Amino acid sequence: MRRTALLLAAAGTLSAAAPAFAQAQQDAPEPPAKLSTCLPCHGRDGIGTAPLNPNLAGQKALYMVKQLKAFKSGERRHDQMSLIAESLSDDDMDALSEWYAAQPPGGNP
Amino acid sequence: MRRTALLLAAAGTLSAAAPAFAQAQQDAPEPPAKLSTCLPCHGRDGIGTAPLNPNLAGQKALYMVKQLKAFKSGERRHDQMSLIAESLSDDDMDALSEWYAAQPPGGNP
Repeated sequence: MRRTALLLAAAGTLSAAAPAFAQAQQDAPEPPAKLSTCLPCHGRDGIGTAPLNPNLAGQKALYMVKQLKAFKSGERRHDQMSLIAESLSDDDMDALSEWYAAQPPGGNP
Repeated sequence: MRRTALLLAAAGTLSAAAPAFAQAQQDAPEPPAKLSTCLPCHGRDGIGTAPLNPNLAGQKALYMVKQLKAFKSGERRHDQMSLIAESLSDDDMDALSEWYAAQPPGGNP
């Protein structure tokens, strides 16, 4: 009987949490089309995958857009990033920067 | 009487927390000598003070050292950072990068 009560309580908690979860899913930005280009070095949640790959989670979006444009123009140089930035449109850069800016700093738990 | 009990309980909590706080203070790195150079744009805790000033809190130390060296050598250019990096020794760069890497990502609450 006690177990049934616990299960019912758990079910109640889940159904109460469901709308909040749905809302959070709705608010989260869509993963940008070109995100796969960034994943090997910066991860999906913006935590760099090696000591020289910067974390981007929670970074300022405008700063990231500026750096992507600098890589594309050649003002800033990096073997991989210069090549990758060449393939990105302004819209891609905005979307990718907004994605990473929206990730929790320190990464998803 | 109840108030006294509460005060005693609070005092107990404080004295229990004190050694942990002292330990945290002991573990925190000393602010580097040149930190004042970085504060106007990156803040003491590594949260950029304007949309184009990147957050450095929790950033990877090796990445930051590499960027400081690139600013000093002219490989990466930025009006303020190029000037500032010229005034930094390798030891300064290590200390500043370790400082910011050790700040909580997202900043101190």
